[in-house]
Amino acid sequence: MNGTGNLMDFLDEPFPDVGTYEDFHTIDWLREKSRDTDRHRKITTKSKESYWELIKSLLDAWSGWVVMLLIGMLTGTLAGVIDLAVDWMTDLKEGVCLSAFYYSHEQCCWTSNETTFDDRDKCPQWQKWAELMTGHSEGAGAYVLNYFLYVLWALLFSFLAVSLVRVFAPYACGSGIPEIKTILSGFIIRGYLGKWTLLIKTVTLVLAVSSGLSLGKEGPLVHVACCCGNLFCSLFSKYSKNEGKRREVLSAAAAAGVSVAFGAPIGGVLFSLEEVSYYFPLKTLWRSFFAALVAAFTLRAINPFGNSRLVLFYVEYHTPWRRKTTLLGKYPVLEVIVITGITAVLAFPNPYTRRSTSELISELFNDCGALESSQLCDYVNNPNMSRPVDDIPDRPAGPGVYTALWQLALALIFKIVITIFTFGMKIPSGLFIPSMAVGAIAGRIVGIAVEQMAYHHHDWIIFKNWCRPGADCVTPGLYAMVGAAACLGGVTRMTVSLVVIMFELTGGLEYIVPLMAAAVTSKWVADAFGKEGIYESHIQLNGYPYLDVRDEFTHRTLATDVMRPRRSEPPLAVLTQDSTTVEDVETLIKDTDYNGFPVVVSRESERLIGFVQRRELTVAIKTARQKQDGVVSSSVVYFTEDNPQVAEACDPQPLKLRRILNLSPFTVTDHTPMETVVDIFRKLGLRQCLVTRSGRLLGIITKKDVLRHMAQMMNQDPESIMFN
Amino acid sequence: MNGTGNLMDFLDEPFPDVGTYEDFHTIDWLREKSRDTDRHRKITTKSKESYWELIKSLLDAWSGWVVMLLIGMLTGTLAGVIDLAVDWMTDLKEGVCLSAFYYSHEQCCWTSNETTFDDRDKCPQWQKWAELMTGHSEGAGAYVLNYFLYVLWALLFSFLAVSLVRVFAPYACGSGIPEIKTILSGFIIRGYLGKWTLLIKTVTLVLAVSSGLSLGKEGPLVHVACCCGNLFCSLFSKYSKNEGKRREVLSAAAAAGVSVAFGAPIGGVLFSLEEVSYYFPLKTLWRSFFAALVAAFTLRAINPFGNSRLVLFYVEYHTPWRRKTTLLGKYPVLEVIVITGITAVLAFPNPYTRRSTSELISELFNDCGALESSQLCDYVNNPNMSRPVDDIPDRPAGPGVYTALWQLALALIFKIVITIFTFGMKIPSGLFIPSMAVGAIAGRIVGIAVEQMAYHHHDWIIFKNWCRPGADCVTPGLYAMVGAAACLGGVTRMTVSLVVIMFELTGGLEYIVPLMAAAVTSKWVADAFGKEGIYESHIQLNGYPYLDVRDEFTHRTLATDVMRPRRSEPPLAVLTQDSTTVEDVETLIKDTDYNGFPVVVSRESERLIGFVQRRELTVAIKTARQKQDGVVSSSVVYFTEDNPQVAEACDPQPLKLRRILNLSPFTVTDHTPMETVVDIFRKLGLRQCLVTRSGRLLGIITKKDVLRHMAQMMNQDPESIMFN
Repeated sequence: MNGTGNLMDFLDEPFPDVGTYEDFHTIDWLREKSRDTDRHRKITTKSKESYWELIKSLLDAWSGWVVMLLIGMLTGTLAGVIDLAVDWMTDLKEGVCLSAFYYSHEQCCWTSNETTFDDRDKCPQWQKWAELMTGHSEGAGAYVLNYFLYVLWALLFSFLAVSLVRVFAPYACGSGIPEIKTILSGFIIRGYLGKWTLLIKTVTLVLAVSSGLSLGKEGPLVHVACCCGNLFCSLFSKYSKNEGKRREVLSAAAAAGVSVAFGAPIGGVLFSLEEVSYYFPLKTLWRSFFAALVAAFTLRAINPFGNSRLVLFYVEYHTPWRRKTTLLGKYPVLEVIVITGITAVLAFPNPYTRRSTSELISELFNDCGALESSQLCDYVNNPNMSRPVDDIPDRPAGPGVYTALWQLALALIFKIVITIFTFGMKIPSGLFIPSMAVGAIAGRIVGIAVEQMAYHHHDWIIFKNWCRPGADCVTPGLYAMVGAAACLGGVTRMTVSLVVIMFELTGGLEYIVPLMAAAVTSKWVADAFGKEGIYESHIQLNGYPYLDVRDEFTHRTLATDVMRPRRSEPPLAVLTQDSTTVEDVETLIKDTDYNGFPVVVSRESERLIGFVQRRELTVAIKTARQKQDGVVSSSVVYFTEDNPQVAEACDPQPLKLRRILNLSPFTVTDHTPMETVVDIFRKLGLRQCLVTRSGRLLGIITKKDVLRHMAQMMNQDPESIMFN
Repeated sequence: MNGTGNLMDFLDEPFPDVGTYEDFHTIDWLREKSRDTDRHRKITTKSKESYWELIKSLLDAWSGWVVMLLIGMLTGTLAGVIDLAVDWMTDLKEGVCLSAFYYSHEQCCWTSNETTFDDRDKCPQWQKWAELMTGHSEGAGAYVLNYFLYVLWALLFSFLAVSLVRVFAPYACGSGIPEIKTILSGFIIRGYLGKWTLLIKTVTLVLAVSSGLSLGKEGPLVHVACCCGNLFCSLFSKYSKNEGKRREVLSAAAAAGVSVAFGAPIGGVLFSLEEVSYYFPLKTLWRSFFAALVAAFTLRAINPFGNSRLVLFYVEYHTPWRRKTTLLGKYPVLEVIVITGITAVLAFPNPYTRRSTSELISELFNDCGALESSQLCDYVNNPNMSRPVDDIPDRPAGPGVYTALWQLALALIFKIVITIFTFGMKIPSGLFIPSMAVGAIAGRIVGIAVEQMAYHHHDWIIFKNWCRPGADCVTPGLYAMVGAAACLGGVTRMTVSLVVIMFELTGGLEYIVPLMAAAVTSKWVADAFGKEGIYESHIQLNGYPYLDVRDEFTHRTLATDVMRPRRSEPPLAVLTQDSTTVEDVETLIKDTDYNGFPVVVSRESERLIGFVQRRELTVAIKTARQKQDGVVSSSVVYFTEDNPQVAEACDPQPLKLRRILNLSPFTVTDHTPMETVVDIFRKLGLRQCLVTRSGRLLGIITKKDVLRHMAQMMNQDPESIMFN
């Protein structure tokens, strides 16, 4: 009951810097947790003193839910605004609304008197650029002018986006999910979730999506939501001063981000759990659930799509292919302009790539009943068969369907290639939508092919049992949905959250079995090529110190093989409890760049008594030299419990530093299998661990040593992962 | 690379008992994991030797998926059979099918010529008992005879159920979920998941549900699924010989159980994750997902409800109230008979309690459009208003609705009281359905009240903005659904899995926001009364050593306060590495009942070198005494690495036992906060942990010490949990 109590009381006051970490360093989860418990205990004790303190303690207890409420509300609002802005700007590439320039095509024609959807699309208030400028809406001239302006707007948007990112917030580029995963695992990247990033990412996301590039808004929305989470953390010292607690909030914010990105609150929570989060206690599950709920509710109140449902079909994310550096990569602005130019020029002529990707997916998912006017539904009517109301297409395909097939095939190739180049550019870009589009196109093509086979060969065994003549046995829309799920699953390796998101998106609860089958199959197939999903690959490419929960370490090495110092290296830098001078310590700090030093009883016995952080040691010595009389270079530093007995009066004043000594450093024996060590690092979120044998200190293992060793073993024996 | 390798090679052969645990003991997760890695490594190494070994290794790698497939198929089949049997036996209480006695009421009338549902219900092939016996279907005599036979059948079924449980499988009683949670956390209860339990639980579950008691089949189905999981584990040595791996399979089996119980595969996976499982790596998530999928698919193929959907509305579980012992509790058979008698006598007269609980819930959830003939839909028709097709009931309630309200109120009281007494009886019983029924009845009553208020007071502020006259603004069915979710949430404290199960059950994806709000609110309200759900309470009542992941330990105690020996106790029982004789060891084993002993360099230095299990020590000495020449009582036991040098020829042969020494025991320092220690036990699944100071061994902390200490601190300061 004694030691740590005093330790904390001392620490709270004198060193304001204690408990913060340097940029690009790893946090110590156990320490953060223990600091939060201390804070909490203090509040609980105080709360018994007066009513005011009791109210304060209750407020503190509820602050978690308040933060969730705020995050949910802001994320929902931002998502709504982004949706509205993207809608307007996407349409701006084609034309403008004469009644109010800030109306999108749909809003513009909403109040129009035309009754059919087709006529409404061509309402007089909405004018394409060629029509507005030259007065002609048809003909080669108008087509070329529209084409030219489409490309021009696209270039303008993407140029603006890349410039803003470059000048104001370099961290706003990409999807942000790999970095958020790394941050949640305990890494510090200052500014990555800052206010500037939030503002610039929101604005440039609108520009990037509107420019028509093959990218999605979902990944970036998760980043935006995490920035909101970080923003609100700063309102409460409980979260702003504790990196562990902050990460709990960020996990929930990620759930809120996915919730609004897909209109899938449950899917969001599961995505955060399965894909993004590292440390996910059940409390965070409940909070995430609440944040996702509020965010979905707020978005629904804004109602960007003019129907009272959540955003049923308007989706996106990141690409499955990897491209770390290209020649163009050195000129990010030029790269964006070139890719945008190519995308716009190639996309315009094909009706399936000209429209926004989410509209395309929505059309591919639907059955012909709802798509009367689509090319995809141009079936030959059988005069002998009265057309049923729900339009079951057991009919031969008409010329429109064949044209559509060719265009879809071209669109598929185009999407695959351009997405590879788009992902990784220096603008906000997600890969969910492009992946789903690729899968949906492929799925729809297969679906139509099977449907036509079933029509022409009713007697084949596979069709015989399932298809009665005249009945519906093949739904191409379902093939598209399954294809999209499979492609997305292959890219990200999501399973449960994927299926939940897919059925929250489409409302297709009855398709749960094919969707689950697709998710499992795509995971199996993709795993045969390599265990890691796109986010893990990205983390590896960037070299972040991320200890994946999923990698299983099955090698036979022991702690002694990994610890430093190695045999050839100089001995471990240690401090002794009562025989090191201030000067020795200062020299050690200057000569090495270790994050901390073990403290032993004496160099002979090598018995470990604790661990001291470099940062705290530096601050303590500096403070002591300034404020404490008699502390000079030759003063002896004491880490012992008892007061040192100064032999003679002329000896310099000793410096007592037990209060900064961590008396419970984590230790393992040298015979501990590395498998266990990896498990301990992963589950307890350690930063370092000391290695002992029979009570003697032998060495140290840091998180980086563990990661390095794992990478090394993986390269030595890549086969072994197959059998996990 | 040396130590453990040899250690394992030695261990595999000589001691067949190594790695097994005694009944009612706790497993060591780290050790199980490490044993599996060794097995896996061996297979990987062998697989390079020949094609046959390669195939064997591939089969081993896929055995996990095979087990999942088998579990899914058997669980789905059993659930289908149970559903069919319950259907038939529930109807048997009222009457019999003349065309085939094994048809249920619905199956019997399926082929009938009557076209409306109402007429079909009264088809001539189906005869009530009174009609069959006396020829009269109406009148007081027939009513009394039907009533009498209804009670008689119920008593017969419940008597059979309780007798079978008592005689053949005492473990088959209750829901089994608290025990499964405990088993999954690493406790051994032999026979709990055995073949007899599987068989008897399946049969008695059908009897108990059919008897009309206020209990559900969902909890027991989870138990049945886990028994299936355990059964298939025994086919593969990978799972049967490793308690850790076995628990991975059981987690997935629990998911398959919920999947078929509710027809909710995703909900099942989440339930397993949120409620049941302890150690749930992502690999288990994927496997669970697969098992749940196969189970749902199998059930669908059996199609017990005659529609091609999964079991949309046929649900159940366990009760929210606790009753450990009653006077009747000592006579389990009598208790069951009495409760069944009371239930049947009271349930028959009220139409809402006579039918099966799941039918009741289904009716309460539905809107009046689908329930034309129900009393609940007896609204007064307004002659000025033509009745719309979708029957929006903005109308005053008719006499039928008022009657229904009274009957529902009585049913609510009856259900609450009888469920308290039913749960805990010695028959399989779940509480999901009864809880949902209570919530649904309350919800429907409130819903009708609000609806009528809205009708009579259109001008009240709360209704003004939402309800236009003549439009639908209050849906009593939705109130019932939200009520059911809230009640269930309060009982079990599920959140995410609850909402997913509810919407998988009802297909009501659009009601996700009210359902989520209900789940969060009920959790808040229930948490104000106490943190733990019904399963945790049950575990505590039974005194299982379960270390809850959710309890947060925030007290200021240190490892030194918890470790044994306490100050007043005799010193820790240790072995020395080279000075203990065989006799000493045997005495120590006889005099103490510890599970293992630390080994130190010498009693003076107290430097820890390892830990040896009691069980392995016993076996090793026994084996050595039998097989190794020269090992006598005075032989010295050596745990050192080097071979002991025997001074003189006449000295007895030494016994080398390093191979059974665990060289990497888990240690913490005496200053480690208990908070950290609890975290370590929880996350790493330890059985015991040694306490050291400056490399000297001070004491030991076991899982039971941790649990005892937590309970003690909780009682001292019960307020503190409020602030978590």
